[in-house]
Order: sequence, then structure tokens, then C-alpha cells
Amino acid sequence: MGDHHIVVVGGGFGGLQVVNGLKGAGAKITLVDRRNHHLFQPLLYQVATTILSTSEIAWPIRHLFSDRPDVTTLLGEVDAVDTKVKQVTLRNGTTLRYDTLVLATGATHAYFGHDEWERVAPGLKTLEDATTIRRRVLLAFEHAELETDPAVRDALLTFTIVGAGPTGVELAGIIAELAHFTLPSEFRNIDTHKARVVLVEAGPRVLATFAEELSAYAQRALEKLGVETHLGEFVTDCTADGVRMGEKFIPSKTIVWAAGVEASPAAKWLGVAEDRAGRTIVEKDLRAPGLPDVFVIGDTASVMRENGSPVPGIAPAAKQQGEYVAKVIRAGLKGKDAPPAFRYRHQGSLATIGKSAAIIDFGRIKLRGWIAWWIWGLAHIYFLIGTRSRFAVAWSWLWIYLTGQQSARLITQRETIQEKK
Amino acid sequence: MGDHHIVVVGGGFGGLQVVNGLKGAGAKITLVDRRNHHLFQPLLYQVATTILSTSEIAWPIRHLFSDRPDVTTLLGEVDAVDTKVKQVTLRNGTTLRYDTLVLATGATHAYFGHDEWERVAPGLKTLEDATTIRRRVLLAFEHAELETDPAVRDALLTFTIVGAGPTGVELAGIIAELAHFTLPSEFRNIDTHKARVVLVEAGPRVLATFAEELSAYAQRALEKLGVETHLGEFVTDCTADGVRMGEKFIPSKTIVWAAGVEASPAAKWLGVAEDRAGRTIVEKDLRAPGLPDVFVIGDTASVMRENGSPVPGIAPAAKQQGEYVAKVIRAGLKGKDAPPAFRYRHQGSLATIGKSAAIIDFGRIKLRGWIAWWIWGLAHIYFLIGTRSRFAVAWSWLWIYLTGQQSARLITQRETIQEKK
Repeated sequence: MGDHHIVVVGGGFGGLQVVNGLKGAGAKITLVDRRNHHLFQPLLYQVATTILSTSEIAWPIRHLFSDRPDVTTLLGEVDAVDTKVKQVTLRNGTTLRYDTLVLATGATHAYFGHDEWERVAPGLKTLEDATTIRRRVLLAFEHAELETDPAVRDALLTFTIVGAGPTGVELAGIIAELAHFTLPSEFRNIDTHKARVVLVEAGPRVLATFAEELSAYAQRALEKLGVETHLGEFVTDCTADGVRMGEKFIPSKTIVWAAGVEASPAAKWLGVAEDRAGRTIVEKDLRAPGLPDVFVIGDTASVMRENGSPVPGIAPAAKQQGEYVAKVIRAGLKGKDAPPAFRYRHQGSLATIGKSAAIIDFGRIKLRGWIAWWIWGLAHIYFLIGTRSRFAVAWSWLWIYLTGQQSARLITQRETIQEKK
Repeated sequence: MGDHHIVVVGGGFGGLQVVNGLKGAGAKITLVDRRNHHLFQPLLYQVATTILSTSEIAWPIRHLFSDRPDVTTLLGEVDAVDTKVKQVTLRNGTTLRYDTLVLATGATHAYFGHDEWERVAPGLKTLEDATTIRRRVLLAFEHAELETDPAVRDALLTFTIVGAGPTGVELAGIIAELAHFTLPSEFRNIDTHKARVVLVEAGPRVLATFAEELSAYAQRALEKLGVETHLGEFVTDCTADGVRMGEKFIPSKTIVWAAGVEASPAAKWLGVAEDRAGRTIVEKDLRAPGLPDVFVIGDTASVMRENGSPVPGIAPAAKQQGEYVAKVIRAGLKGKDAPPAFRYRHQGSLATIGKSAAIIDFGRIKLRGWIAWWIWGLAHIYFLIGTRSRFAVAWSWLWIYLTGQQSARLITQRETIQEKK
């Protein structure tokens, strides 16, 4: 092993790809994450909606590199980066000297200055977020079954999702299916067919990053599942009783936030410029400006495409950046010329609406309906890490497809804030 | 549906069996549980030790009775029972009038007057207990990897289990295998081979309810896995730093309590006599003394066998009692003679030690080693509810058997007390 020490912070899609790409490079690598697991975020909404179990979409990071003696995995959270002495400080006080640093620390959900909404409208970024949403959705039905006041019961049976990007649309579709197909036979006092699923979006259409025709198809598919869409409406307040959009108030005991993201504070650690969403504005080779030993990639980096549009915050983009940075570092270690500037190749956009509709936008080729749904499913199974998870997820999906019964319907952990009110 | 209203409290093995046995009896049944899921407790230790995922051993109770229009499932916790007006009050204020009441409310772990130990030495009764233990075990290795003080590192790598009944032995065996076989290749700063697993038992032998020869075999199997057993030693204190047994102190950052149980307060709700462990002392037909409309079954009831020994607190005993009570109630509804007094049939005792040894005590026939292990595995898969879980658990076990890799190794939820210290 060489003397060159590469510290990679973040075990998401970008960080893992950097470590993978440095196999055999002869450097010493330390991978730091504040969680012990890599999370397959594209399927997180399925944990929130009782389809998959937590362990089907998350894997212990250190296990992924058990056959890489050059890689040390540490559980820790970055507190500060000192770019002068080239050192990262973790929250527990551990310090790590680096020769090269890669920050791949991702993003979290953002409430546009209304952090107080988080308490009643959780976002979906971690396994805990997913089990929180799952618990609240299931508890709403349980409490409705016991409730005698019709107005409270209706509010308990109204589920509001804020934001109609892929996550919001996916959540709305599955919650509607849960209420309208899975649960009706299990309740005696309430009719879960009457549950309302409300999708609120500030923009003019759902899935705005897709072509208009696919957007329109998705909207029809949502309506067919019984989802109410409210487009062009801004949320002005979220409370334990419902969602306000200007004059309009929707009584709703369960709210999920899928509207905005905010980058990790990588730019602040480095003392460099950030964009409006807090992303570090990087050079064409993904280096932090003025810091040749520091790379910033993935959702925490602001990278522009050649056509001037931003690189989207999706898994394939983070992976491509990770792959690129590994190449740049390898070239540097060998004293070779650096590869040309990073270039993002968009492979297509996918989104599902419930259990049988999906849309795929490959640019020239656009697909929708069940064929898109099958491609979506196969693509996600293909990209899952670990043979066991592939089988387990395929099995869970097949089971639900054949029987219509979700089985990860567990209410676990107590509410810390909600229940005390 | 008839007018007779049967309230069953508790969706464990006993409660479910009562409801199953009342199919077609023509009564209205309300099943109340404070959790939304039935838990297959015999395999809970496998969730705590990263082998199984939570959704593999727990199922939504209301789903089990979706095809039974006579059954209403409610999520609620009993606050009081008024046996004069025959009414159960739930914590949220809901009241349920009953004609017949069955209390199958189970037991929880007990600290023999030292409830303050729970904070540092969690027991294993719920899914949250299991994920708490899983988190603490995994975090201990993570923190040891970062620790520079050798004494603290050794305490982090010492895992103490108090109580050498089946749960304690099963936990000790799997934690030892995790440390000595699964994890060594994944850490760079610590040698997980050196982790100590300590099993403390006040009695003179492990698995004391088994025949002495099987007990001795289990002890040898544990020692082969590297578990230290301390027999005939009473725990006098548990702290965040370790376990004290009189003069002896074992520095240990992770402690699991598997030493004692305490019944739910069913006897107090009813105002009837209880035994030392808080169990309701019931009549020969499992009725509460003086309350012909109230039955108490399972771990919360004290039932004697014909030979004067107590019926053990295990799943088959609760099931037999549930089956019996359903028969008594059916006979009553039809105006027939009640069946003779409850009689417990002991089908045998099973316990496993790690991934390839087990003991089975059928009375005359005693088995040990791999053949016992296979019978144990098949029996548990057979008794799992739901075809999907059977396949899923069989698949998880086969995977671990073939690859040696546990995959439910997730650290989720934050510590609320531990981390603040």
C-alpha cells in the first residue's frame, strides 16, 4: 500500500463509486459515513409504503469492502475540514489527515425556511424517515377505526403529499393503492375506499422533468388510482391538523414532504462558493475551486452540463462523477495527464405510478404503461447491490404482484413529538 | 352474527388461537392489541443478532383476520377492566362492553427491583428491543474501530448476556459467531476474534429446564464458539461500564438482559390473586377465580400441571390454552357441558447454540448436534405464520448457511439515553 491517503466522506452512490474505482490504485483509502449502511435511495419510498423491508435496500458499507485491505471504513460524522493542514475532524474528535479528499455527503430535505414543518411533515431521506412515514400512515388508519367524530375521522383518512416529483408521485400512488385495494377488507368501522390521497405541487404539472406527454399520462394514471392532484398551489402552512395553500385548507393528519432538497454543508466546511440550494460550485474536473486536493461530487455538488443545464441529483449522475474522480486521482498518482473535463451522460428518467404504470423518458424514446413498469422493475433489481437483495426484492415484488398483499406493514418505534401533543 | 360479544386482549400466540378457535361460533369478537402486529417471539433473538429482518417475524394482526367479518381488530392498550359492568377501558378512552373476556396480555422482562438497569441492559420482548440490541452490538464494534484507549476498546469488545435460558444462550451463540466468523475481515484497527462474549447465570447450569446431559452439551458447544460462561453468579449491578457480580467486575459496554420475566398486570385489572411473578392464578378451566366470564391465558396466567409443576411460559402452552378456552366458550354458547379441566401436553423443548448445534428434549428422546439443529429449523419454519414469511426466513437462513453473511446488519434509530451520557 502506498503512502497516499485518500479520505472519502459519504457512502452513497458517489462515494462507493470512487472507492470501487480506486481498486488496486496503491493508495490507502478511508471511507467515512455517519451511517453504517449504504442506502438504495431510489426504493426508499417502498419501505415508507410497506412494500419492502429496511434490510432489503440497505447494506453494511464495511461489508462491501471486506475484501479490500486498502479500505478502512469508519462510522463518523464530519465536523470540520481544515484545508490548510489537510485534515478532517469527526464529531467524536477523531482526526484524519488526507492527501486527497472526496466529499460525497449528499443532500437532505428542505422546508424553504419553515423547519418547524418537519415535525408534522417528515421528508424521505433515511431509513428512519421511511419507517416514520410508514408508522404514521398505518397509525392514521388505526386511529380512524377507533374515532367516533366524523370530521376527525376524515382528517385521519386524508393523506397529503407535498411535491409531485418522482418521490411524491410514487408515494401518492402506493398510498392510494394501499387504501383502495389492500386494506378495505381489514377494517370494520371505516371504509378505507373513502381515504383521500392529495398531491400538492407548486409547478404546473406532475413530474416536470419529464416530457409533457409523459407528465400528462402520469397525471391520468394518478387520477385513475384516486389521487387528487392540486397543481400550481403553494403550501403556506403545515400543522398537525392539515395543509394550508393560501385560502384553501385541507384537513389532513398525515403529511409527507417531498418538495425540496438542501445540500450538505460541504461548501461551508471548505469555505468556497455555493449555489442557492447550498451545493458547492465545482470546477470542470469536480475539484473545489482553489483546492486541487479536494473533490466534491453527487448531490452536494453543483455541476453544469455542456448545454448549461444542471446535472440532475440522481444516482446515475453521482455514480458517473465518482467514476470520473477515481480516474482523475489514479492519473495523478501515476503522474499522468488528467482526463478531460467531466461530462454527464443522461441515460434516461424513470418514474412509477402505483403497481402497474410507469413512464420512461430516454430522450428520443418515450415509454409508458406496463412495459415501462417492467423495464423500471428490472432496471432497479439490476442495480441493487448484493445478490441476496436482488432475490429478496424480486420475491417481495412478485409476492405482492400475485397476492396484492404487502407484508412489511409494521408500526415500530414510538412517536417522540406527535404522541406527546 | 350473534349478540354475544367476546373481547380478546392480546394478539400473541394465545389470543390468536382463541380467535381462530371461535371461527363460525356465531359471536361478535373484538381483538385488542397495543401493537399492530403479531410477533413470532421465538425468533426475535435472530432480529437482535442481524440474521432476520423485522418484517420476517411480524405480521399485521388485522390482516390475519381480513376474511373473518365476525372479528374487529383494534389497536389499543388496556387501562382498566370493570368486571361489575363487564367493560374494558382503553387508554384512549374507548370502552368495550363484553359478555366474555379473554386476557392474553403476556409478560415483559423484569429486573428484580432494579428497573434502572434497563437503560444499560435492555431485554428482548419487542421488535424495538431487538433493533436496540442489534444497534448496540453493531455500534460497539464501530466505536471500538475508532477507539484509541485499549481499556475502553476491550470494554467495547465485551458483550455480556445475563441469564442462560434459551434466549440468553441463543444470543450468546450468535454474537460469538458474528464476532469470530462474520466480522473479522471487515475491520482494520481491531481484531474482532478477540471480542469476549460473557454469559452470566445465577443457577448452576445453562438451559436448566433441559436434561443435565443436554445442558452439559450446550455448555461445551458454547465454549467451542468462544463464549465464557459464569455459572452460579448473581449480578449485583449493571452500569454503562460493565456488570458487577459481587467482587467480580466485567468491563462491558454492551449488556443484554435475558434473566427474568414479569406478567402483565391482568390480576390487578381484575382484582384477583397473583403469584410471585405477577401471574394471575386461574381455575382449572382457566377462568379467573370468581369471574366466570373472564379467562386468563398464556404468560400472564399461572397454571399448574397435574404433576404440580407450572406450565412453562412458551408458545405451545399459550396456544393450547387458547384452543381450550375457545372450546369452553363454544360449549357455553351452545348451552353444552364444558370440556374437562385444561391439561397441558408438553411436546418438547428446543434450543439452539449458534448456527449448527441445537438440543431437543422430547422427554424420552433427547437429540443434540446438527440433526437437532435441522429439526429445530424445520419446526420453526413450519410454525411461522404466512407462506411468504416461511419462504423469506428459509431463504435468509439458507443464504447465511451457504455464504456465512448476515445481511440485516443495520444500525437504525438513535439512542435516546445512551448517547446523551
